[in-house]
Amino acid sequence: MDVLVVGGGIIGMSIAWRARQAGMSVTVLERDGPGEGTSHVAAGMLAPVAEVEFGADGRRLLELGLHAARAWPAFASELEISTGVSVGMLRTGTLLVARDDDDARELERQLSFRQSLALAVRRLRPSEARELEPALAPTVRLALEAPDDHSVDPRLVLAALERACASVGVQVRANALVARIELGGVPERVTGVTLEHGERVPAEQVVLAAGPWSGLIDGVPQAATVPVRPVKGQIMRLRDPAGPGLLRRVVRFRGGYLVPREDGRYVLGATVEERGFELAPTAGGAYQLLRDAHELVPGVSELEIEELSVGLRPGTPDNSPAIGPSALPGLIWATGHYRNGILLAPLTAELVTGALAGEPAPALLSACAPARFAPPTAHPETSTGASTAGGASAVEVGA
Amino acid sequence: MDVLVVGGGIIGMSIAWRARQAGMSVTVLERDGPGEGTSHVAAGMLAPVAEVEFGADGRRLLELGLHAARAWPAFASELEISTGVSVGMLRTGTLLVARDDDDARELERQLSFRQSLALAVRRLRPSEARELEPALAPTVRLALEAPDDHSVDPRLVLAALERACASVGVQVRANALVARIELGGVPERVTGVTLEHGERVPAEQVVLAAGPWSGLIDGVPQAATVPVRPVKGQIMRLRDPAGPGLLRRVVRFRGGYLVPREDGRYVLGATVEERGFELAPTAGGAYQLLRDAHELVPGVSELEIEELSVGLRPGTPDNSPAIGPSALPGLIWATGHYRNGILLAPLTAELVTGALAGEPAPALLSACAPARFAPPTAHPETSTGASTAGGASAVEVGA
Repeated sequence: MDVLVVGGGIIGMSIAWRARQAGMSVTVLERDGPGEGTSHVAAGMLAPVAEVEFGADGRRLLELGLHAARAWPAFASELEISTGVSVGMLRTGTLLVARDDDDARELERQLSFRQSLALAVRRLRPSEARELEPALAPTVRLALEAPDDHSVDPRLVLAALERACASVGVQVRANALVARIELGGVPERVTGVTLEHGERVPAEQVVLAAGPWSGLIDGVPQAATVPVRPVKGQIMRLRDPAGPGLLRRVVRFRGGYLVPREDGRYVLGATVEERGFELAPTAGGAYQLLRDAHELVPGVSELEIEELSVGLRPGTPDNSPAIGPSALPGLIWATGHYRNGILLAPLTAELVTGALAGEPAPALLSACAPARFAPPTAHPETSTGASTAGGASAVEVGA
Repeated sequence: MDVLVVGGGIIGMSIAWRARQAGMSVTVLERDGPGEGTSHVAAGMLAPVAEVEFGADGRRLLELGLHAARAWPAFASELEISTGVSVGMLRTGTLLVARDDDDARELERQLSFRQSLALAVRRLRPSEARELEPALAPTVRLALEAPDDHSVDPRLVLAALERACASVGVQVRANALVARIELGGVPERVTGVTLEHGERVPAEQVVLAAGPWSGLIDGVPQAATVPVRPVKGQIMRLRDPAGPGLLRRVVRFRGGYLVPREDGRYVLGATVEERGFELAPTAGGAYQLLRDAHELVPGVSELEIEELSVGLRPGTPDNSPAIGPSALPGLIWATGHYRNGILLAPLTAELVTGALAGEPAPALLSACAPARFAPPTAHPETSTGASTAGGASAVEVGA
C-alpha cells in the first residue's frame, strides 16, 4: 500500500480520491463510517469572504480560502459527473446581517476591511436587504452581501466521494480505529499504523486526516506533532413544510447562520464551545440558536426541527489548518480545518496529493505548515524534508 | 371475548388490567405498540390542584381529579408490587411560579380561588420559593406551593402495565389498527370490530380508549359519537450530566412546566396547539419552551437535550373526558382526557370496569357522560341504557 489516509471525512476522502487518481494505491481507515463525524454535521458554507479575519494570519487564510472557493465549482462538477450524485451546490451568495446598532457598526468595519482587500462585498440598506430576502425581520439594521460565498451540502458531497473513491479503487475500511503510527528504518520514518485491536497495516506514507480525533493517535514523535482539540458546535436541521422559498441566500449574523438547501431544508448553526469530546446537544445551545434566528428571520418558527446535532471542529492552537509534510518522513498532516473544512477540502486534497508525490510545498501553504507546532529543541539539527513547508525544526523521535 | 379495548395507552392498558382482574376476558387492540402514542410523550403530572379551572365544569373535573390523585398511590404500589417495575412516583409537590407582576397578580387570584375550594395550597414569597428550589431565578415574583400535586413517569407506568396485563392474561395485540365498530342484533348493539386489513374480532363489549385517534374509527352511530380532536403538545426531555438536584419539585409557570425525575432527567413541556395530526416538533415550539424555562430556571441551559417529541392530547369540545357507556349498547367510551390522562387513568379504569360489569354510573361521572355530545334528534325515543350516564338522547343508527 502506497498511502494510508486516517479519517474518512470530507478531507480524508477527497485526498484519497485525488491520490488514487494520481496513480497511488490508497486505503482510508475510518473509525466509524465515512462522513459520520464532523462532515455529517457541517453546514457546508464556502465563505472565504464572510469568514475573513483581521491580521496577517487572517490574510494568509483568506488567500487559501479564495483559492479553495475557486476550486470548488470544478471539483463539484467532476464529482457530480463521475458519480451522478448532486452535491447540492447553491450559488446564491451570502448576506451578513446586523440586528442592532452595535452589529451595524461592526458590519461597517467589516465592510471597510473587505473593501481594503478588494473583496466582492456590497453594502445594503435594510430595505435593499429585505428586497433580496423578504423573510428578514423589519428590525434588521444593515446588511452586507458577499455574492461569491456559496454553499454545498456536505452529506451529499460525502455520498459522492464514497462513490467516486469506490469507482477508482480506493479501499475504504469502516470501523477501523487507528491506535498508533508505526515507525522504523534509519533514518526513522513511517512504516504504517496499528489498529485498535492490534492489526498492523503497512504503508509507505500516512496522511492524518482524522479531524479532532487526530491528536488521539499514539506514536507521533513530538517534533512531528500537531496539537488538535475538538471545538463543539451545536447545529439544527430545519425543514419548511411549505417547501423552499423562505430564504434563498445564506444569512449570517452575530453568533450564527442559516444555510438554505434547495428543497426547503435549512441548517441553523452553530455554537462554538470548548467542551472536549462532549457530544450532547444542550438546552442552552438550542436556545441561543433559536433565539437569534427568530429575531432575524421570524418565519423560522414555523419550520420543523428534523435534527439537533453536535459536531466537533478540529482546532489547532492558532485555529489555522495543518496541511503538508511533518518533520517525520512519510507522515503528512491534513487536519485542523476548524470552521473551514468543507471549503478547504478540494484544495487540501490537491496540496496533499502533491506532497505525497514529493512535490515541494507551494507558498500558499506557508500559513499551514505543521512544523509551526514543533516544540523548540535544545539541539537543532538539519530539518528532514519539512523545511519547504515553512521552517520545520529538528526531528525528535520517540518523545 | 368479553371485552375489546381499543387503544394500548395508559387508559386502555389500565382498563384492561382492571377488567381482567374483575374476571372478564380482555384483548387490547393497539394501532402501534402499547404506550407508543400520547402516553409515551406525557410528562406525568398528577396535578388536580394546579390544573383546577374556574367555573362549574372546572369544579366537577376537580372532584374527579382529587379522587384520581387519591387513587394513585395504591394503584402505583399494586403495580410495582405485582410487576417489580418502579413507576417513578415522586411525592415532592408542585410550585406554581410567577415571573412578572402580571403573573403574580394571576397567581394571587388562583390562590384565592383554591383557598375558596379548601385546597391545599400555600403562598410563598420569592425568598421562600428559592429556599425550597434554589435553582429558581432571583427574578421570580411569587410562588404557590401545591404540596399534594405529585408526578409519575408514564413510560415506567406503561412498562409496568404491560407486565401486569401479561401476568393476568390480557391479550395485547400490537399493530392492530381498528377500522370500524361492528353492529348487529335487535335492538342493535356492538358485536365487535373490524381491523384495517379486514379481520373481524368479535366481542360482547368494546371500550374506545384510542385517545386522539378514537374519532377515526368508523361505524359509531351518531347518537353514540364523541367528537375527539388531537391537540398538539411539544415537549423536551432533558438530562443533567451532573446528576439529580437542580429541581426537586415540579415547577409550573405560564405556558409550561418542568417535571424532575429521580435520576437527573427533566421533562420540559408543553405547547398547546391546534394543528391536527401534525407530529413534527417546530423551531417555534422549542424556542417557546426553552425561553420560558431559561428565564425561570437559568441552570436549565447546562442540561442536555435527550429528546424533542410531540404528543397529541385527545380533546373533546369541552375538553372534559368522555368516560362511560354510550347510547349504543356494548360501546363504552374512555377518551378525551386531554391534559389529564395520566392523572385520571386509575380512576377511569375503575369506573369503566364498573360500567363493563353493568354497574350504574356514579355521580362522580356526571361531568364525563359521553351522551353530552349526542346531537339533538327530531324524534326522541327511549334511551337505551345510557341514561345512567347522564341523560343520553335517542339512538340513531347508521348515520
